[in-house]
Amino acid sequence: MIVVMKQSATEEQISRVVKHLLDLGFDPYRSTGKVQTILAAIGERPFDKNDLELFDGVQEVVRISLPYKLASRNSKPENTVIKVKDIELGGSGIAITVRVVASNSFHQVEQIYTRLAQEGVKLATVTLSEKQPSEKQLKEYRAVADSLGLLLVARPKSLQEVAKACHYCDILEVGTLSNRLFLEEASKADKPLIVSRLPSMSIEEVLVLAESVLSLGIEKVIICEQGVRMLDPLIAQSLDISAITAIKRLSHLPVFADPCAAMGRRDRVAPMALAAAVGGVDGLVFDILASNEQYGTPQALTFTQFLELLQQLRLIVSAIGRRLL
Amino acid sequence: MIVVMKQSATEEQISRVVKHLLDLGFDPYRSTGKVQTILAAIGERPFDKNDLELFDGVQEVVRISLPYKLASRNSKPENTVIKVKDIELGGSGIAITVRVVASNSFHQVEQIYTRLAQEGVKLATVTLSEKQPSEKQLKEYRAVADSLGLLLVARPKSLQEVAKACHYCDILEVGTLSNRLFLEEASKADKPLIVSRLPSMSIEEVLVLAESVLSLGIEKVIICEQGVRMLDPLIAQSLDISAITAIKRLSHLPVFADPCAAMGRRDRVAPMALAAAVGGVDGLVFDILASNEQYGTPQALTFTQFLELLQQLRLIVSAIGRRLL
Amino acid sequence: MIVVMKQSATEEQISRVVKHLLDLGFDPYRSTGKVQTILAAIGERPFDKNDLELFDGVQEVVRISLPYKLASRNSKPENTVIKVKDIELGGSGIAITVRVVASNSFHQVEQIYTRLAQEGVKLATVTLSEKQPSEKQLKEYRAVADSLGLLLVARPKSLQEVAKACHYCDILEVGTLSNRLFLEEASKADKPLIVSRLPSMSIEEVLVLAESVLSLGIEKVIICEQGVRMLDPLIAQSLDISAITAIKRLSHLPVFADPCAAMGRRDRVAPMALAAAVGGVDGLVFDILASNEQYGTPQALTFTQFLELLQQLRLIVSAIGRRLL
Amino acid sequence: MIVVMKQSATEEQISRVVKHLLDLGFDPYRSTGKVQTILAAIGERPFDKNDLELFDGVQEVVRISLPYKLASRNSKPENTVIKVKDIELGGSGIAITVRVVASNSFHQVEQIYTRLAQEGVKLATVTLSEKQPSEKQLKEYRAVADSLGLLLVARPKSLQEVAKACHYCDILEVGTLSNRLFLEEASKADKPLIVSRLPSMSIEEVLVLAESVLSLGIEKVIICEQGVRMLDPLIAQSLDISAITAIKRLSHLPVFADPCAAMGRRDRVAPMALAAAVGGVDGLVFDILASNEQYGTPQALTFTQFLELLQQLRLIVSAIGRRLL
Repeated sequence: MIVVMKQSATEEQISRVVKHLLDLGFDPYRSTGKVQTILAAIGERPFDKNDLELFDGVQEVVRISLPYKLASRNSKPENTVIKVKDIELGGSGIAITVRVVASNSFHQVEQIYTRLAQEGVKLATVTLSEKQPSEKQLKEYRAVADSLGLLLVARPKSLQEVAKACHYCDILEVGTLSNRLFLEEASKADKPLIVSRLPSMSIEEVLVLAESVLSLGIEKVIICEQGVRMLDPLIAQSLDISAITAIKRLSHLPVFADPCAAMGRRDRVAPMALAAAVGGVDGLVFDILASNEQYGTPQALTFTQFLELLQQLRLIVSAIGRRLL
Repeated sequence: MIVVMKQSATEEQISRVVKHLLDLGFDPYRSTGKVQTILAAIGERPFDKNDLELFDGVQEVVRISLPYKLASRNSKPENTVIKVKDIELGGSGIAITVRVVASNSFHQVEQIYTRLAQEGVKLATVTLSEKQPSEKQLKEYRAVADSLGLLLVARPKSLQEVAKACHYCDILEVGTLSNRLFLEEASKADKPLIVSRLPSMSIEEVLVLAESVLSLGIEKVIICEQGVRMLDPLIAQSLDISAITAIKRLSHLPVFADPCAAMGRRDRVAPMALAAAVGGVDGLVFDILASNEQYGTPQALTFTQFLELLQQLRLIVSAIGRRLL
Repeated sequence: MIVVMKQSATEEQISRVVKHLLDLGFDPYRSTGKVQTILAAIGERPFDKNDLELFDGVQEVVRISLPYKLASRNSKPENTVIKVKDIELGGSGIAITVRVVASNSFHQVEQIYTRLAQEGVKLATVTLSEKQPSEKQLKEYRAVADSLGLLLVARPKSLQEVAKACHYCDILEVGTLSNRLFLEEASKADKPLIVSRLPSMSIEEVLVLAESVLSLGIEKVIICEQGVRMLDPLIAQSLDISAITAIKRLSHLPVFADPCAAMGRRDRVAPMALAAAVGGVDGLVFDILASNEQYGTPQALTFTQFLELLQQLRLIVSAIGRRLL
Repeated sequence: MIVVMKQSATEEQISRVVKHLLDLGFDPYRSTGKVQTILAAIGERPFDKNDLELFDGVQEVVRISLPYKLASRNSKPENTVIKVKDIELGGSGIAITVRVVASNSFHQVEQIYTRLAQEGVKLATVTLSEKQPSEKQLKEYRAVADSLGLLLVARPKSLQEVAKACHYCDILEVGTLSNRLFLEEASKADKPLIVSRLPSMSIEEVLVLAESVLSLGIEKVIICEQGVRMLDPLIAQSLDISAITAIKRLSHLPVFADPCAAMGRRDRVAPMALAAAVGGVDGLVFDILASNEQYGTPQALTFTQFLELLQQLRLIVSAIGRRLL
């Protein structure tokens, strides 16, 4: 880190900071210019910026090592490609993931899965909890998925469901349940893990979360952008395209986006999904309605809307030299 | 507007609000439910929401008529297409506009204009003021533009320059100079006017600004999105793709975007320009460097970067059934 | 709610919305003006604003009943006063709550508690988990608290700790652990509950959280303001004085503020604590250091700083006709 | 500034940055640690952070000298006190400034000024432009002010009015008219200048604006906080108490606050005015109504509200060892 001392800092104040840096295990270099002194301490020991800034005579402390190493593109310049069965995530393909919402009928879901598979879709999300599938249903989902060549993504909503999710599904998604216990439980299964940037998280916070997963030994981590609150009174929330480009620049991990969750209304999903596709995402997650006459999930696309959007996406990503998975 | 009275509102409080609405020229309808009373006053008389909310017994006042009429898609569902010479803005084409920055040499600019015209670019921006072109230079610009079939866009920086800009250029741009005097001066020339959403303006504010131009009788108004400050500490500012889609939804006016101004750094321009293109813009404005070895305009693309981006844009917009102008 | 139809809405579109409102159990009133139609549906049935806005012909849906009833000042105009033993929270007194941080020594904490009690402080927070006090220590805390007339506040960090917290402490604090299971567990004990507005929560969200606690039958709810992220690059986070005044206006519940957590640095706590006091809070929570030579908790005040601030607070709140508890 | 090079930066990339720093006139020091290299260039030459960050191999550029020198507390640790006639602004007193709104009657204003003077108020704001006072009226204002011992503050709204404002008034206020020409014109008169932080300005931006005034030789500069847009949907705008404390910490200049402009509604002014007072302001600006039955200025206090608030403020500031002017 760099400690910038005030112009008015005394020699004694500087010495006290130097001593503290030595205590922390740093080997600080002191540079005194005409105006002020700076102390450079390069290395990776933990420190608290605020603690240091509270020393008398300190103007500002600047952190220069990133709080995420394994996740950063500095440490690994090339994109991480995650292979699940014969599907490569984070490569040249953009993975379409579909979650069928508001259906109680496994048969209905099965029919939709079949049509999705015909359209070339490779990933489907099974939500655990709330209307959670029973063990019997999970077996059925698994059988259908296998017959269609679909990968199953699970969103467990409690610690108890993780083992079951790992058993029947191919990829795990961490939603709001991103605590240490959950991550440790999930890490046992060696399944790819999707960590979501919730609206309340900064870009750095989701990268630090990804780092904590990587440091548990799970190398297959995907980041999923879920939208942010916007400042404009006319836009409550939106997918953040600039965040997608920033995360791709800062990290080698695959990045997904969830335009349905982000936009909250089906009539606003399509242009943002296209924008995310050209903005660099490696996957797109969509909620679709089991039938057109449903209320309560305004973010979910009708099947017709989904097919139209899929067609547009196919053209768009082909124009940038990628393809849909 | 709708006045929602508190549950605890007395008859006397309700009467006082009704009387005030009548004084304002409204013809309010009163609806009293089991829980509370609402007063609906449909119409377009001016009122101050805060004034009304300060009446005793009022819970909330909800404005239901938009503060922009002429600019709204409610009043005109189809897109406005602005024809300048033989070029149509706001139609199926996406207009590329280029501003050559940091050059003192007219000859250098002329060479670049020629190359731009070869690439099919149709609009070029001439900045007035600061290093402002003299009358003689403007004549030269005009001659070159005419010979190449370019439209000239002017950004006058003072009231004094408006007449000159109108004389030599085809389109005027209102930047920070959006006051009444400027707009009135500009309205005399019957030239298309670009109004910018500056980072400090909300979506509604730029629509109200467009409305004020339309109400002066200038029908050819283009809105230009210039980027917003972002909440994330890692992204100081960004082009706001969701604002572009929102303005297109709310208004029939053509919308341009300026990804260079919005992003501030040339290495961040390309993905956001592509995202804006699929997000629905009718024009894109780019700063380009007169030569590669320049400092002080980090937002400007090198000519090579610009050509590469142009190629990508051409493929992308063709995939969505549009084309570059 | 009010459904504002577009000017262009057809009779058929209006009928379809009316039918849907009837299906939802509303008894909508239709008002058609010269410009447009509005539908007013007063009542408290649940509905999804986005669902309704997706109907063809709808311009906007405005919710007019608040999503929190029990917590709202509409339903209970006078302040709620919560009596715990002989101490009244939410009345004319402002309760000072202290948490001693970074100490492993019960003896050290005991000494500080004794000095706090001499200063008239009535509430002390015991953190459970991480360096969690054992059952034996909790007994000791309880004994000391009883001998000094202190109330103990507990911040359990897992569901497992709730029962223990209820047994030994007087008030429970819900931090990040605000899920349904936790609230149900906590509701069994009939202890006052502090719900925090975390930086990611809007004002309405914390009121809805308070509502969910009230609806479980716990009437003794306190809201604690913990600070928000700020837009200005120079201020990462801050206590939000305007939120305090807004919550006091909208709700009858007592409001506490935690300026240490909100500001993150001890040198910035004092003026914001004073501002919160005159802004209407009913309690202030402070972290204090067990000894002056500690790092890692830059938000915690030294004991000397705390005493000085206490003295200032005493003068300030006396000037507004309140007193410190 | 500090240039932090990437871990992967090559010697050639480092050399190119060093050369550029030398070209800019810096004398950079290079420090190469185990992980990465940093270049420290202490001094005050102008540079563009983005330009530097665009060099290959650069991870981040950190500015360490503030973009405002004269305005900073680093350069002048003690508070600046501005003496106007016998009144000291920025000292131990907090100056109450009043603007009477929405009155066409000079006689009415005169009566109010007389009552204000009886209450000890020392500053009154005269708005120029819109309903601008004529030269004759300004003379009358001046005469009344002199007879009552009031200082007059002028808010000219065009360049043309500056000279007149300087002639008849004691203090000038820069509102939205903060351009160079205006500041140069104002600087001729050697009157104290109030620069406002408009809602669209960051803290650093208002300090840079104050710097530009100081660098014109006007030493008597006051900063006025006007409120910011808030993120919470329930609070459109608010006075920013943390900004007040931040500006006082960063700068030696007196800071005023305008809670009426900031809050926009008279019923929300009082608690924020009290909070600003204990937060460290040196002056408070209030709009007051000429008569109670006025609409269109919901931010203005009634005279009765103002007197009550004045009474509360007097008690509060006395509790923190200050007094009202």
